[in-house]
Amino acid sequence: MKIGFIGLGNMGNPMAANLAKAGHDVTGFDMADVDVAGVTMAASGAEAAESAEIVITMLPNGIILRAVGDEIIPAMQSGAVWIDCSTVDVDSARAVADQAKAAGILAVDAPVSGGIGGAAAGTLTFMAGGSDAAFAKAAPLFDIMGQKAVHCGESGAGQAAKICNNMILGVTMIATCEAFALADKLGLDRQKMFDVVSTSSGYSWTMNAYCPAPGVGPESPADNDYQPGFAAELMLKDLRLSQQAAESSDADTPMGQAATALYEQFVEAEGGLGKDFSAMLPRFEKRGRS
Amino acid sequence: MKIGFIGLGNMGNPMAANLAKAGHDVTGFDMADVDVAGVTMAASGAEAAESAEIVITMLPNGIILRAVGDEIIPAMQSGAVWIDCSTVDVDSARAVADQAKAAGILAVDAPVSGGIGGAAAGTLTFMAGGSDAAFAKAAPLFDIMGQKAVHCGESGAGQAAKICNNMILGVTMIATCEAFALADKLGLDRQKMFDVVSTSSGYSWTMNAYCPAPGVGPESPADNDYQPGFAAELMLKDLRLSQQAAESSDADTPMGQAATALYEQFVEAEGGLGKDFSAMLPRFEKRGRS
Repeated sequence: MKIGFIGLGNMGNPMAANLAKAGHDVTGFDMADVDVAGVTMAASGAEAAESAEIVITMLPNGIILRAVGDEIIPAMQSGAVWIDCSTVDVDSARAVADQAKAAGILAVDAPVSGGIGGAAAGTLTFMAGGSDAAFAKAAPLFDIMGQKAVHCGESGAGQAAKICNNMILGVTMIATCEAFALADKLGLDRQKMFDVVSTSSGYSWTMNAYCPAPGVGPESPADNDYQPGFAAELMLKDLRLSQQAAESSDADTPMGQAATALYEQFVEAEGGLGKDFSAMLPRFEKRGRS
Repeated sequence: MKIGFIGLGNMGNPMAANLAKAGHDVTGFDMADVDVAGVTMAASGAEAAESAEIVITMLPNGIILRAVGDEIIPAMQSGAVWIDCSTVDVDSARAVADQAKAAGILAVDAPVSGGIGGAAAGTLTFMAGGSDAAFAKAAPLFDIMGQKAVHCGESGAGQAAKICNNMILGVTMIATCEAFALADKLGLDRQKMFDVVSTSSGYSWTMNAYCPAPGVGPESPADNDYQPGFAAELMLKDLRLSQQAAESSDADTPMGQAATALYEQFVEAEGGLGKDFSAMLPRFEKRGRS
Protein backbone atom coordinates (compact mmCIF):
# COMPACT_ATOMS: atom_id res chain seq x y z
CA MET A 1 0.00 0.00 0.00
CA LYS A 2 1.26 3.50 -0.78
CA ILE A 3 1.56 5.48 2.44
CA GLY A 4 2.58 9.11 2.99
CA PHE A 5 3.95 9.87 6.48
CA ILE A 6 4.34 13.47 7.62
CA GLY A 7 6.06 14.30 10.89
CA LEU A 8 9.02 12.01 11.53
CA GLY A 9 10.11 13.01 15.02
CA ASN A 10 10.62 10.80 18.07
CA MET A 11 7.27 9.10 17.58
CA GLY A 12 6.68 9.33 13.80
CA ASN A 13 10.13 8.02 12.87
CA PRO A 14 9.78 4.52 14.39
CA MET A 15 6.10 4.32 13.40
CA ALA A 16 6.98 4.97 9.74
CA ALA A 17 9.88 2.54 9.94
CA ASN A 18 7.56 -0.18 11.24
CA LEU A 19 5.19 0.37 8.29
CA ALA A 20 8.08 0.13 5.81
CA LYS A 21 9.40 -2.99 7.54
CA ALA A 22 5.96 -4.59 7.13
CA GLY A 23 6.32 -4.16 3.34
CA HIS A 24 4.41 -0.94 2.70
CA ASP A 25 5.66 1.66 0.24
CA VAL A 26 6.23 4.66 2.55
CA THR A 27 7.09 8.20 1.42
CA GLY A 28 7.95 10.54 4.26
CA PHE A 29 8.29 14.24 4.92
CA ASP A 30 9.52 16.27 7.86
CA MET A 31 10.56 19.92 8.26
CA ALA A 32 13.83 18.64 9.72
CA ASP A 33 16.34 16.64 7.71
CA VAL A 34 15.78 13.08 8.94
CA ASP A 35 16.46 9.53 7.77
CA VAL A 36 13.96 6.77 8.39
CA ALA A 37 14.82 3.13 7.71
CA GLY A 38 13.07 1.95 4.52
CA VAL A 39 11.29 5.27 3.88
CA THR A 40 11.72 7.42 0.74
CA MET A 41 11.87 11.13 1.57
CA ALA A 42 9.76 13.69 -0.32
CA ALA A 43 10.46 17.42 -0.74
CA SER A 44 7.15 18.56 0.81
CA GLY A 45 4.10 17.34 2.66
CA ALA A 46 2.03 17.71 -0.51
CA GLU A 47 4.48 15.53 -2.45
CA ALA A 48 4.36 12.82 0.27
CA ALA A 49 0.56 12.94 0.19
CA GLU A 50 -0.31 13.25 -3.47
CA SER A 51 -0.17 9.65 -4.62
CA ALA A 52 -0.77 7.97 -1.25
CA GLU A 53 -3.73 5.75 -0.50
CA ILE A 54 -3.23 6.52 3.18
CA VAL A 55 -1.59 9.61 4.70
CA ILE A 56 -0.47 9.53 8.32
CA THR A 57 0.46 12.65 10.27
CA MET A 58 2.24 12.87 13.62
CA LEU A 59 2.52 16.55 14.57
CA PRO A 60 3.15 18.59 17.71
CA ASN A 61 -0.02 20.69 17.95
CA GLY A 62 -3.31 21.82 16.43
CA ILE A 63 -1.93 24.91 14.73
CA ILE A 64 0.64 22.89 12.78
CA LEU A 65 -2.01 20.23 12.07
CA ARG A 66 -4.32 22.85 10.51
CA ALA A 67 -1.45 24.20 8.37
CA VAL A 68 -0.50 20.71 7.18
CA GLY A 69 -4.18 20.05 6.44
CA ASP A 70 -4.35 23.14 4.24
CA GLU A 71 -1.32 21.84 2.33
CA ILE A 72 -2.13 18.15 1.93
CA ILE A 73 -5.92 18.02 1.54
CA PRO A 74 -5.85 19.65 -1.94
CA ALA A 75 -3.01 17.29 -2.91
CA MET A 76 -4.67 14.06 -1.76
CA GLN A 77 -6.76 11.80 -3.96
CA SER A 78 -10.48 11.54 -3.38
CA GLY A 79 -11.22 8.31 -1.47
CA ALA A 80 -7.83 8.32 0.25
CA VAL A 81 -7.60 8.04 4.04
CA TRP A 82 -5.97 10.54 6.40
CA ILE A 83 -5.00 9.17 9.81
CA ASP A 84 -3.87 11.90 12.17
CA CYS A 85 -1.97 10.40 15.12
CA SER A 86 -1.09 13.76 16.70
CA THR A 87 -2.42 14.67 20.13
CA VAL A 88 -4.21 17.97 19.57
CA ASP A 89 -7.23 19.90 20.77
CA VAL A 90 -10.63 18.43 19.91
CA ASP A 91 -11.68 21.54 17.96
CA SER A 92 -8.69 21.35 15.58
CA ALA A 93 -9.21 17.60 15.12
CA ARG A 94 -12.84 18.17 14.13
CA ALA A 95 -12.02 21.14 11.90
CA VAL A 96 -9.45 19.29 9.77
CA ALA A 97 -11.67 16.20 9.62
CA ASP A 98 -14.55 18.32 8.27
CA GLN A 99 -12.24 19.92 5.73
CA ALA A 100 -10.96 16.51 4.63
CA LYS A 101 -14.45 15.01 4.33
CA ALA A 102 -15.56 17.96 2.19
CA ALA A 103 -12.75 16.98 -0.22
CA GLY A 104 -13.87 13.33 -0.36
CA ILE A 105 -11.19 12.11 2.02
CA LEU A 106 -11.83 9.64 4.86
CA ALA A 107 -10.53 11.13 8.11
CA VAL A 108 -9.50 9.41 11.37
CA ASP A 109 -8.14 11.13 14.46
CA ALA A 110 -6.07 8.52 16.26
CA PRO A 111 -3.88 9.82 19.08
CA VAL A 112 -1.74 7.21 20.74
CA SER A 113 -0.56 6.16 24.14
CA GLY A 114 2.57 4.14 24.75
CA GLY A 115 5.31 6.71 24.15
CA ILE A 116 8.56 6.37 22.24
CA GLY A 117 9.14 2.86 23.54
CA GLY A 118 5.74 1.75 22.30
CA ALA A 119 6.29 3.42 18.92
CA ALA A 120 9.58 1.55 18.43
CA ALA A 121 8.21 -1.79 19.63
CA GLY A 122 4.95 -1.44 17.69
CA THR A 123 2.89 -1.70 20.88
CA LEU A 124 1.03 1.62 20.82
CA THR A 125 -2.65 1.98 21.71
CA PHE A 126 -4.72 4.05 19.27
CA MET A 127 -7.84 5.95 20.36
CA ALA A 128 -9.67 6.56 17.10
CA GLY A 129 -12.46 8.85 15.93
CA GLY A 130 -14.10 8.77 12.50
CA SER A 131 -16.64 6.86 10.41
CA ASP A 132 -16.80 3.06 10.41
CA ALA A 133 -15.49 3.02 6.83
CA ALA A 134 -12.52 5.23 7.70
CA PHE A 135 -11.70 3.18 10.82
CA ALA A 136 -11.90 -0.08 8.84
CA LYS A 137 -9.34 1.21 6.34
CA ALA A 138 -7.02 2.42 9.08
CA ALA A 139 -7.24 -0.72 11.23
CA PRO A 140 -4.61 -2.83 9.40
CA LEU A 141 -2.04 -0.06 9.90
CA PHE A 142 -2.95 0.29 13.58
CA ASP A 143 -2.19 -3.44 13.86
CA ILE A 144 1.33 -2.86 12.51
CA MET A 145 2.13 0.25 14.55
CA GLY A 146 0.40 -0.85 17.73
CA GLN A 147 -1.26 -3.62 19.64
CA LYS A 148 -4.67 -2.11 20.30
CA ALA A 149 -7.03 0.31 18.60
CA VAL A 150 -10.36 1.41 20.07
CA HIS A 151 -12.92 3.02 17.79
CA CYS A 152 -14.31 5.69 20.12
CA GLY A 153 -16.89 7.35 17.86
CA GLU A 154 -17.07 10.05 15.21
CA SER A 155 -14.32 12.57 14.38
CA GLY A 156 -12.76 14.08 17.49
CA ALA A 157 -13.75 11.12 19.71
CA GLY A 158 -10.20 9.77 19.68
CA GLN A 159 -8.83 13.07 20.97
CA ALA A 160 -11.64 13.32 23.51
CA ALA A 161 -10.89 9.84 24.86
CA LYS A 162 -7.19 10.53 25.10
CA ILE A 163 -7.49 13.80 27.01
CA CYS A 164 -10.15 12.40 29.35
CA ASN A 165 -7.90 9.41 30.08
CA ASN A 166 -4.83 11.56 30.57
CA MET A 167 -6.64 14.08 32.73
CA ILE A 168 -7.55 11.22 35.09
CA LEU A 169 -3.97 9.96 34.84
CA GLY A 170 -2.39 13.30 35.75
CA VAL A 171 -4.69 13.78 38.74
CA THR A 172 -4.18 10.22 39.96
CA MET A 173 -0.40 10.49 39.69
CA ILE A 174 -0.33 13.60 41.87
CA ALA A 175 -2.73 12.05 44.39
CA THR A 176 -0.58 8.90 44.56
CA CYS A 177 2.60 10.93 45.03
CA GLU A 178 1.18 13.18 47.73
CA ALA A 179 -0.22 10.13 49.51
CA PHE A 180 3.22 8.46 49.48
CA ALA A 181 4.78 11.63 50.90
CA LEU A 182 2.07 11.79 53.59
CA ALA A 183 2.65 8.10 54.39
CA ASP A 184 6.38 8.83 54.80
CA LYS A 185 5.65 11.57 57.30
CA LEU A 186 3.23 9.31 59.19
CA GLY A 187 5.93 6.62 59.43
CA LEU A 188 4.16 4.16 57.13
CA ASP A 189 6.59 1.99 55.16
CA ARG A 190 6.33 2.49 51.38
CA GLN A 191 6.23 -1.21 50.60
CA LYS A 192 3.32 -1.62 53.05
CA MET A 193 1.61 1.38 51.47
CA PHE A 194 1.97 -0.29 48.05
CA ASP A 195 0.76 -3.65 49.40
CA VAL A 196 -2.40 -2.07 50.82
CA VAL A 197 -3.30 0.46 48.14
CA SER A 198 -2.49 -1.69 45.09
CA THR A 199 -4.97 -4.32 46.32
CA SER A 200 -7.58 -1.95 47.77
CA SER A 201 -9.92 0.77 46.56
CA GLY A 202 -7.04 3.19 45.91
CA TYR A 203 -5.53 1.07 43.16
CA SER A 204 -4.76 2.59 39.77
CA TRP A 205 -2.40 2.24 36.83
CA THR A 206 -0.25 4.88 38.52
CA MET A 207 0.15 2.80 41.67
CA ASN A 208 0.04 -0.72 40.27
CA ALA A 209 1.86 -0.47 36.93
CA TYR A 210 3.96 2.70 37.20
CA CYS A 211 4.61 3.12 40.91
CA PRO A 212 6.31 6.50 41.57
CA ALA A 213 8.29 5.15 44.57
CA PRO A 214 11.73 3.73 43.66
CA GLY A 215 12.19 0.06 44.54
CA VAL A 216 8.49 -0.51 45.10
CA GLY A 217 6.13 -2.27 42.68
CA PRO A 218 7.07 -3.14 39.10
CA GLU A 219 10.08 -1.58 37.32
CA SER A 220 9.20 2.02 36.38
CA PRO A 221 10.97 5.35 35.63
CA ALA A 222 11.25 5.87 39.41
CA ASP A 223 13.79 3.03 39.36
CA ASN A 224 15.81 4.88 36.72
CA ASP A 225 16.20 8.25 38.43
CA TYR A 226 12.90 9.43 36.90
CA GLN A 227 14.20 9.46 33.32
CA PRO A 228 11.08 9.43 31.10
CA GLY A 229 9.03 7.37 30.39
CA PHE A 230 6.31 9.91 29.95
CA ALA A 231 7.85 13.33 30.44
CA ALA A 232 6.24 15.84 32.80
CA GLU A 233 6.02 18.43 29.99
CA LEU A 234 4.03 16.00 27.82
CA MET A 235 1.63 15.39 30.71
CA LEU A 236 1.34 19.16 31.01
CA LYS A 237 0.56 19.42 27.29
CA ASP A 238 -2.26 16.88 27.62
CA LEU A 239 -3.63 18.49 30.78
CA ARG A 240 -3.71 21.85 29.01
CA LEU A 241 -5.61 20.26 26.12
CA SER A 242 -8.10 18.85 28.62
CA GLN A 243 -8.63 22.30 30.12
CA GLN A 244 -8.96 23.87 26.67
CA ALA A 245 -11.66 21.29 25.86
CA ALA A 246 -13.35 21.86 29.23
CA GLU A 247 -13.43 25.59 28.61
CA SER A 248 -14.79 25.34 25.10
CA SER A 249 -17.46 22.82 26.18
CA ASP A 250 -18.28 24.55 29.51
CA ALA A 251 -17.32 21.54 31.66
CA ASP A 252 -16.36 21.89 35.33
CA THR A 253 -13.08 20.04 35.96
CA PRO A 254 -11.63 21.27 39.26
CA MET A 255 -9.22 18.36 39.70
CA GLY A 256 -7.98 18.60 36.13
CA GLN A 257 -7.48 22.31 36.64
CA ALA A 258 -5.51 21.79 39.86
CA ALA A 259 -3.34 19.10 38.21
CA THR A 260 -2.62 21.44 35.29
CA ALA A 261 -1.50 24.19 37.66
CA LEU A 262 0.73 21.79 39.63
CA TYR A 263 2.42 20.32 36.53
CA GLU A 264 2.86 23.84 35.15
CA GLN A 265 4.63 24.89 38.33
CA PHE A 266 6.66 21.67 38.34
CA VAL A 267 7.80 21.95 34.70
CA GLU A 268 8.33 25.70 34.56
CA ALA A 269 9.67 26.57 38.00
CA GLU A 270 10.65 23.45 39.92
CA GLY A 271 13.03 21.53 37.68
CA GLY A 272 10.47 19.05 36.32
CA LEU A 273 11.34 19.68 32.66
CA GLY A 274 12.82 16.53 31.14
CA LYS A 275 11.88 14.37 34.12
CA ASP A 276 9.26 11.65 34.15
CA PHE A 277 5.82 12.80 35.29
CA SER A 278 6.12 10.49 38.32
CA ALA A 279 8.95 12.73 39.64
CA MET A 280 6.12 14.52 41.48
CA LEU A 281 6.98 12.15 44.36
CA PRO A 282 10.46 13.61 45.11
CA ARG A 283 8.85 17.05 44.70
CA PHE A 284 6.32 16.31 47.45
CA GLU A 285 8.92 14.59 49.65
CA LYS A 286 10.79 17.86 49.97
CA ARG A 287 7.79 20.05 50.71
CA GLY A 288 5.95 21.07 53.84
CA ARG A 289 2.29 21.99 53.83
CA SER A 290 1.81 25.17 51.85
CA MET B 1 -12.51 -17.15 73.47
CA LYS B 2 -14.02 -14.44 75.67
CA ILE B 3 -14.52 -11.29 73.61
CA GLY B 4 -15.80 -7.85 74.63
CA PHE B 5 -17.29 -5.78 71.81
CA ILE B 6 -17.97 -2.08 72.33
CA GLY B 7 -19.78 -0.04 69.67
CA LEU B 8 -22.58 -2.06 68.07
CA GLY B 9 -23.79 0.24 65.32
CA ASN B 10 -24.18 -0.49 61.60
CA MET B 11 -20.69 -1.96 61.38
CA GLY B 12 -20.07 -3.32 64.89
CA ASN B 13 -23.38 -5.16 65.12
CA PRO B 14 -22.81 -7.63 62.24
CA MET B 15 -19.09 -7.97 63.11
CA ALA B 16 -19.97 -9.01 66.68
CA ALA B 17 -22.69 -11.34 65.41
CA ASN B 18 -20.17 -13.06 63.11
CA LEU B 19 -17.81 -13.65 66.05
CA ALA B 20 -20.66 -15.14 68.13
CA LYS B 21 -21.75 -17.30 65.20
CA ALA B 22 -18.19 -18.65 64.94
CA GLY B 23 -18.53 -19.93 68.53
CA HIS B 24 -16.86 -17.17 70.55
CA ASP B 25 -18.30 -15.97 73.87
CA VAL B 26 -19.11 -12.34 73.06
CA THR B 27 -20.22 -9.70 75.57
CA GLY B 28 -21.30 -6.43 73.99
CA PHE B 29 -21.93 -2.83 74.99
CA ASP B 30 -23.35 0.16 73.19
CA MET B 31 -24.67 3.52 74.37
CA ALA B 32 -27.86 2.75 72.44
CA ASP B 33 -30.18 -0.10 73.34
CA VAL B 34 -29.38 -2.72 70.70
CA ASP B 35 -29.76 -6.46 70.22
CA VAL B 36 -27.07 -8.50 68.53
CA ALA B 37 -27.63 -12.13 67.58
CA GLY B 38 -25.76 -14.42 69.98
CA VAL B 39 -24.23 -11.59 72.02
CA THR B 40 -24.79 -11.04 75.78
CA MET B 41 -25.23 -7.36 76.61
CA ALA B 42 -23.29 -5.71 79.45
CA ALA B 43 -24.26 -2.60 81.42
CA SER B 44 -21.08 -0.66 80.59
CA GLY B 45 -17.95 -0.72 78.48
CA ALA B 46 -15.88 -1.59 81.52
CA GLU B 47 -18.13 -4.55 82.29
CA ALA B 48 -17.86 -5.83 78.69
CA ALA B 49 -14.05 -5.48 78.87
CA GLU B 50 -13.16 -6.70 82.35
CA SER B 51 -13.03 -10.45 81.83
CA ALA B 52 -12.34 -10.45 78.06
CA GLU B 53 -9.20 -11.92 76.50
CA ILE B 54 -9.84 -9.67 73.50
CA VAL B 55 -11.73 -6.38 73.42
CA ILE B 56 -12.87 -4.97 70.09
CA THR B 57 -14.08 -1.39 69.65
CA MET B 58 -15.91 0.12 66.67
CA LEU B 59 -16.48 3.80 67.42
CA PRO B 60 -17.30 6.92 65.42
CA ASN B 61 -14.32 9.17 66.17
CA GLY B 62 -11.11 9.78 68.09
CA ILE B 63 -12.70 11.72 70.93
CA ILE B 64 -15.07 8.88 71.76
CA LEU B 65 -12.22 6.39 71.33
CA ARG B 66 -10.10 8.24 73.92
CA ALA B 67 -13.04 8.34 76.36
CA VAL B 68 -13.70 4.61 75.91
CA GLY B 69 -9.97 3.95 76.38
CA ASP B 70 -10.02 5.80 79.69
CA GLU B 71 -12.90 3.60 80.79
CA ILE B 72 -11.79 0.16 79.60
CA ILE B 73 -7.99 0.16 79.99
CA PRO B 74 -8.14 0.12 83.81
CA ALA B 75 -10.79 -2.64 83.63
CA MET B 76 -8.90 -4.92 81.23
CA GLN B 77 -6.61 -7.76 82.31
CA SER B 78 -2.89 -7.45 81.74
CA GLY B 79 -1.93 -9.45 78.63
CA ALA B 80 -5.34 -8.97 77.02
CA VAL B 81 -5.60 -7.60 73.45
CA TRP B 82 -7.46 -4.46 72.36
CA ILE B 83 -8.36 -4.31 68.68
CA ASP B 84 -9.72 -0.91 67.70
CA CYS B 85 -11.54 -1.15 64.36
CA SER B 86 -12.70 2.49 64.35
CA THR B 87 -11.48 4.88 61.66
CA VAL B 88 -9.97 7.76 63.63
CA ASP B 89 -7.11 10.23 63.44
CA VAL B 90 -3.59 8.80 63.65
CA ASP B 91 -2.76 10.84 66.77
CA SER B 92 -5.69 9.42 68.77
CA ALA B 93 -4.87 5.89 67.59
CA ARG B 94 -1.29 6.26 68.80
CA ALA B 95 -2.32 7.91 72.09
CA VAL B 96 -4.70 5.12 73.14
CA ALA B 97 -2.23 2.44 72.00
CA ASP B 98 0.48 4.00 74.20
CA GLN B 99 -1.91 4.16 77.13
CA ALA B 100 -2.92 0.51 76.64
CA LYS B 101 0.69 -0.68 76.34
CA ALA B 102 1.59 1.13 79.55
CA ALA B 103 -1.09 -0.99 81.24
CA GLY B 104 0.32 -4.25 79.81
CA ILE B 105 -2.33 -4.54 77.09
CA LEU B 106 -1.52 -5.50 73.49
CA ALA B 107 -2.98 -2.86 71.16
CA VAL B 108 -3.90 -3.08 67.47
CA ASP B 109 -5.42 -0.29 65.39
CA ALA B 110 -7.33 -2.02 62.60
CA PRO B 111 -9.64 0.20 60.56
CA VAL B 112 -11.61 -1.60 57.89
CA SER B 113 -12.74 -1.18 54.35
CA GLY B 114 -15.72 -2.96 52.85
CA GLY B 115 -18.64 -1.13 54.44
CA ILE B 116 -21.83 -2.50 55.99
CA GLY B 117 -22.17 -5.16 53.28
CA GLY B 118 -18.66 -6.42 53.99
CA ALA B 119 -19.30 -6.41 57.74
CA ALA B 120 -22.42 -8.55 57.32
CA ALA B 121 -20.83 -10.94 54.83
CA GLY B 122 -17.56 -11.21 56.79
CA THR B 123 -15.54 -9.91 53.85
CA LEU B 124 -13.94 -6.81 55.37
CA THR B 125 -10.32 -5.82 54.80
CA PHE B 126 -8.37 -4.83 57.92
CA MET B 127 -5.41 -2.45 57.83
CA ALA B 128 -3.60 -3.15 61.06
CA GLY B 129 -0.96 -1.38 63.15
CA GLY B 130 0.73 -2.81 66.24
CA SER B 131 3.41 -5.23 67.37
CA ASP B 132 3.89 -8.64 65.73
CA ALA B 133 2.64 -10.30 68.93
CA ALA B 134 -0.51 -8.18 69.01
CA PHE B 135 -1.22 -8.74 65.31
CA ALA B 136 -0.74 -12.51 65.70
CA LYS B 137 -3.35 -12.62 68.47
CA ALA B 138 -5.81 -10.53 66.46
CA ALA B 139 -5.38 -12.42 63.18
CA PRO B 140 -7.82 -15.31 63.88
CA LEU B 141 -10.60 -12.78 64.56
CA PHE B 142 -9.78 -10.84 61.40
CA ASP B 143 -10.25 -14.13 59.54
CA ILE B 144 -13.79 -14.45 60.94
CA MET B 145 -14.85 -10.83 60.41
CA GLY B 146 -13.07 -10.31 57.11
CA GLN B 147 -11.21 -11.84 54.22
CA LYS B 148 -7.95 -9.94 54.33
CA ALA B 149 -5.76 -8.31 56.97
CA VAL B 150 -2.55 -6.45 56.18
CA HIS B 151 -0.09 -5.78 58.99
CA CYS B 152 1.07 -2.26 58.04
CA GLY B 153 3.55 -1.57 60.85
CA GLU B 154 3.54 -0.26 64.42
CA SER B 155 0.61 1.45 66.19
CA GLY B 156 -1.09 4.02 63.98
CA ALA B 157 0.10 2.39 60.74
CA GLY B 158 -3.34 0.89 60.11
CA GLN B 159 -4.99 4.32 60.35
CA ALA B 160 -2.23 5.84 58.20
CA ALA B 161 -2.71 3.22 55.48
CA LYS B 162 -6.47 3.67 55.49
CA ILE B 163 -6.45 7.45 55.18
CA CYS B 164 -3.72 7.41 52.51
CA ASN B 165 -5.73 4.86 50.52
CA ASN B 166 -8.99 6.75 50.95
CA MET B 167 -7.42 10.10 50.11
CA ILE B 168 -6.33 8.62 46.77
CA LEU B 169 -9.78 7.08 46.39
CA GLY B 170 -11.65 10.36 46.98
CA VAL B 171 -9.44 12.25 44.53
CA THR B 172 -9.68 9.54 41.89
CA MET B 173 -13.48 9.36 42.18
CA ILE B 174 -13.83 13.09 41.57
CA ALA B 175 -11.37 12.97 38.66
CA THR B 176 -13.26 10.06 37.11
CA CYS B 177 -16.60 11.82 37.51
CA GLU B 178 -15.42 15.13 36.08
CA ALA B 179 -13.81 13.25 33.16
CA PHE B 180 -17.10 11.47 32.41
CA ALA B 181 -18.93 14.81 32.49
CA LEU B 182 -16.30 16.32 30.17
CA ALA B 183 -16.60 13.31 27.85
CA ASP B 184 -20.38 13.83 27.73
CA LYS B 185 -19.93 17.43 26.67
CA LEU B 186 -17.37 16.41 24.02
CA GLY B 187 -19.84 13.89 22.61
CA LEU B 188 -17.85 10.81 23.67
CA ASP B 189 -20.06 7.82 24.46
CA ARG B 190 -19.79 6.66 28.10
CA GLN B 191 -19.37 3.01 27.20
CA LYS B 192 -16.48 3.93 24.85
CA MET B 193 -14.98 6.09 27.59
CA PHE B 194 -15.13 3.10 29.95
CA ASP B 195 -13.68 0.75 27.32
CA VAL B 196 -10.69 3.03 26.76
CA VAL B 197 -9.93 4.23 30.29
CA SER B 198 -10.51 0.92 32.10
CA THR B 199 -7.86 -0.71 29.90
CA SER B 200 -5.47 2.27 29.66
CA SER B 201 -3.33 4.35 31.96
CA GLY B 202 -6.39 6.02 33.52
CA TYR B 203 -7.68 2.80 35.08
CA SER B 204 -8.50 2.66 38.78
CA TRP B 205 -10.77 0.88 41.23
CA THR B 206 -13.14 3.81 40.80
CA MET B 207 -13.45 3.27 37.06
CA ASN B 208 -13.02 -0.50 36.82
CA ALA B 209 -14.79 -1.85 39.90
CA TYR B 210 -17.15 0.94 41.00
CA CYS B 211 -17.91 2.87 37.82
CA PRO B 212 -19.88 6.04 38.65
CA ALA B 213 -21.79 5.96 35.32
CA PRO B 214 -25.09 4.01 35.46
CA GLY B 215 -25.28 1.05 33.08
CA VAL B 216 -21.55 1.09 32.39
CA GLY B 217 -19.03 -1.35 33.85
CA PRO B 218 -19.81 -3.75 36.70
CA GLU B 219 -22.89 -3.34 38.93
CA SER B 220 -22.30 -0.45 41.33
CA PRO B 221 -24.30 2.07 43.42
CA ALA B 222 -24.71 4.16 40.22
CA ASP B 223 -27.02 1.38 39.00
CA ASN B 224 -29.13 1.72 42.14
CA ASP B 225 -29.81 5.47 42.04
CA TYR B 226 -26.60 6.15 44.01
CA GLN B 227 -27.82 4.52 47.22
CA PRO B 228 -24.68 3.79 49.27
CA GLY B 229 -22.42 1.80 49.05
CA PHE B 230 -19.93 4.11 50.57
CA ALA B 231 -21.76 7.28 51.60
CA ALA B 232 -20.40 10.69 50.58
CA GLU B 233 -20.34 11.81 54.23
CA LEU B 234 -18.12 8.85 55.18
CA MET B 235 -15.74 9.74 52.36
CA LEU B 236 -15.76 13.29 53.71
CA LYS B 237 -14.94 11.98 57.19
CA ASP B 238 -11.92 10.06 55.86
CA LEU B 239 -10.74 12.99 53.73
CA ARG B 240 -10.91 15.25 56.78
CA LEU B 241 -8.84 12.73 58.74
CA SER B 242 -6.28 12.73 55.92
CA GLN B 243 -6.06 16.52 56.07
CA GLN B 244 -5.80 16.48 59.85
CA ALA B 245 -2.89 14.02 59.54
CA ALA B 246 -1.30 16.12 56.78
CA GLU B 247 -1.51 19.21 58.94
CA SER B 248 -0.08 17.59 62.05
CA SER B 249 2.77 16.00 60.02
CA ASP B 250 3.39 19.05 57.77
CA ALA B 251 2.63 17.20 54.50
CA ASP B 252 1.59 19.02 51.33
CA THR B 253 -1.56 17.36 49.91
CA PRO B 254 -3.16 19.77 47.43
CA MET B 255 -5.32 17.15 45.73
CA GLY B 256 -6.52 15.73 49.03
CA GLN B 257 -7.32 19.25 50.17
CA ALA B 258 -9.30 20.00 46.99
CA ALA B 259 -11.21 16.71 47.29
CA THR B 260 -12.06 17.48 50.91
CA ALA B 261 -13.46 20.88 49.93
CA LEU B 262 -15.51 19.39 47.08
CA TYR B 263 -17.02 16.60 49.22
CA GLU B 264 -17.72 19.14 51.96
CA GLN B 265 -19.63 21.31 49.52
CA PHE B 266 -21.38 18.24 48.08
CA VAL B 267 -22.48 16.85 51.46
CA GLU B 268 -23.32 20.12 53.20
CA ALA B 269 -24.78 22.27 50.45
CA GLU B 270 -25.55 20.21 47.35
CA GLY B 271 -27.72 17.33 48.50
CA GLY B 272 -24.94 14.74 48.72
CA LEU B 273 -25.79 13.65 52.27
CA GLY B 274 -26.99 10.03 52.23
CA LYS B 275 -25.93 9.46 48.62
CA ASP B 276 -23.09 7.25 47.51
CA PHE B 277 -19.78 9.05 47.03
CA SER B 278 -19.95 8.26 43.30
CA ALA B 279 -22.96 10.61 43.03
CA MET B 280 -20.34 13.24 42.19
CA LEU B 281 -21.06 12.27 38.56
CA PRO B 282 -24.65 13.62 38.44
CA ARG B 283 -23.31 16.67 40.33
CA PHE B 284 -20.78 17.39 37.57
CA GLU B 285 -23.27 16.58 34.79
CA LYS B 286 -25.42 19.52 35.88
CA ARG B 287 -22.62 22.05 36.20
CA GLY B 288 -20.93 24.47 33.87
CA ARG B 289 -17.36 25.60 34.33
CA SER B 290 -17.10 27.61 37.52
